[in-house]
Amino acid sequence: MADKVTIGDVARYAKVSRQTVSNVLNSPEIVREETRRRVRDAVKALGYRASQAARQMRTGRSRLIAARIEPAQEDGINGSVFDRFLHGLTESAARAGYRVLLYTADDHGAELATFDDLLGAYDPDAFVLTSTDYGDPRTTWLLEQRIPFVTFGRPWGVPPERGYPWVDVDGAAGTAMATRYLLDAGHRRIGFLGWPEGSGVGDDRRAGWARTMAAEGIGAAELAELDYRTSDGVPEGEAAAGALLDAERPVTALVCVSDSLALGALQTRRRICVIGFDDTPVARAVGLTSLSQPLAEAAASCVSLLIGQLDGDGAADRARGAAESPPAHRLLQPSLVRRRSA
Amino acid sequence: MADKVTIGDVARYAKVSRQTVSNVLNSPEIVREETRRRVRDAVKALGYRASQAARQMRTGRSRLIAARIEPAQEDGINGSVFDRFLHGLTESAARAGYRVLLYTADDHGAELATFDDLLGAYDPDAFVLTSTDYGDPRTTWLLEQRIPFVTFGRPWGVPPERGYPWVDVDGAAGTAMATRYLLDAGHRRIGFLGWPEGSGVGDDRRAGWARTMAAEGIGAAELAELDYRTSDGVPEGEAAAGALLDAERPVTALVCVSDSLALGALQTRRRICVIGFDDTPVARAVGLTSLSQPLAEAAASCVSLLIGQLDGDGAADRARGAAESPPAHRLLQPSLVRRRSA
Repeated sequence: MADKVTIGDVARYAKVSRQTVSNVLNSPEIVREETRRRVRDAVKALGYRASQAARQMRTGRSRLIAARIEPAQEDGINGSVFDRFLHGLTESAARAGYRVLLYTADDHGAELATFDDLLGAYDPDAFVLTSTDYGDPRTTWLLEQRIPFVTFGRPWGVPPERGYPWVDVDGAAGTAMATRYLLDAGHRRIGFLGWPEGSGVGDDRRAGWARTMAAEGIGAAELAELDYRTSDGVPEGEAAAGALLDAERPVTALVCVSDSLALGALQTRRRICVIGFDDTPVARAVGLTSLSQPLAEAAASCVSLLIGQLDGDGAADRARGAAESPPAHRLLQPSLVRRRSA
Repeated sequence: MADKVTIGDVARYAKVSRQTVSNVLNSPEIVREETRRRVRDAVKALGYRASQAARQMRTGRSRLIAARIEPAQEDGINGSVFDRFLHGLTESAARAGYRVLLYTADDHGAELATFDDLLGAYDPDAFVLTSTDYGDPRTTWLLEQRIPFVTFGRPWGVPPERGYPWVDVDGAAGTAMATRYLLDAGHRRIGFLGWPEGSGVGDDRRAGWARTMAAEGIGAAELAELDYRTSDGVPEGEAAAGALLDAERPVTALVCVSDSLALGALQTRRRICVIGFDDTPVARAVGLTSLSQPLAEAAASCVSLLIGQLDGDGAADRARGAAESPPAHRLLQPSLVRRRSA
């Protein structure tokens, strides 16, 4: 393979100093016309590519948006959501003249260290964060460093005065829609398979089911019977559905916080209607009715909110004294994809 | 959000010209010690981050590896392979001091245009290509431009003298292993659900089944009966399996070129053993026996072959007159993950 053409090669070819080449690339106005032409001919003849570095020196912009690729999950079912989001992000960013720089991190601590690394070495213009949770140290860090970012996920538990731009999908509206669909089909003993209390996403999805059931006149005691909490996974879903089916007053239908739990419920192979969440490839493959997040739209919204910050709306707002207006956000609606499981 | 600190801000703060700041960053040896200190203090005080741009100007290296995120597929089942590969690539690249720059492209033509864009604007040091096929114009283009790259996928149909570094998984060894497993379990009418002839990957996977069956004494006429070709997809797999089960001499087991086709075969809900390819989340979810590609190892091998080119092994080889030795490659072995479908 070819060795990369360096600024030194260009200097030797043009018979000038390295510094002169750097001047031509960065401050052409201080270089004599004839020398400038000679250096540019050398750049062209050797195929030296310096536009990114030179432009970045000039503009202070890398035109890179950093995003994490989520750690692979054990069952790989729900992870497909982030892969599809990343796909949309790559496409939307390219349309706006940005590219996505990937990183991985196993936990928040490792992610903060990676922020520092990336800023030092690649100087991304902005970050897109996913999987926000309560007390998230990442958004606090980026706000303190005054680095532009947007989150796919709400600022759970963050007071409004420390707000930041975010995009999310209204999980409660989704489970409310799924519950309403099952009520309209004649079900009344509709269980909810959810995660343990304390996750923003999980609690939000539970709330949509609970408020729809309560509006139907189902009391708190009965709701507590129908509300099953377990960690995520296919075997966990199978066990939970089994317990709710074997109860004194069994459920006839289930709204689930994830396709993994829903798939487990289906694997009981008993008479039960099941609705999952995230419309994963597994749901499509096995005929599971599921709530679908508009991931391409979410990604495009993230890019659009970032561009607003990067390309000057923010600066213009501040100039108009609008610094006190809350940061922009978008809450998108999921849709119910009906298949044979419900 | 904060406006980005530019080289101009540093110059004003340090009360020097932009050019002097650029000199301190790029050629500190030509700047007086006192001025150098003043500029460095300004860089620190303002939080100016120029190491990437400055280093790139100095070294001609961006420390970026460009990789495509594959277009989302309709059923999303097989796509998870590339997502897992991309994950491994991000981790291996980070360990080697590189980051992954993402792009998308719908076809080879669009991908070539994107190469040009990326090289002009971001100057990646290398590319990782996936999904190679016969007459692939991308590898020809990169070879002509002398841009380092590696492919995950063999150079199908490329003559050895135009070779390049590659990593792949031995699909034929995988289907041979699956076929042998079914033969040992007493099956003899073992069908192959494959793609139409002409794809490197598909033909290779068919070859492993065919040579194992032939070694068992099964003649060409019987092999032709057992060899079913269809486009990829769950309904296609269900139809194909149905046809082979309804034949005069029905199959009792199937080796499939993909988990999508294998899942379709399972959905016939008839008595048949099925083995898929790629060990996707869907296979794990429904209990499908499948061949697993070592994707993290494949990604690490790609990075390792690239680093060899980028960090000088290639140059050293040429200096020793070893230019004629074939480019490095690695063919990795898949493994059979046994579940209840076979």
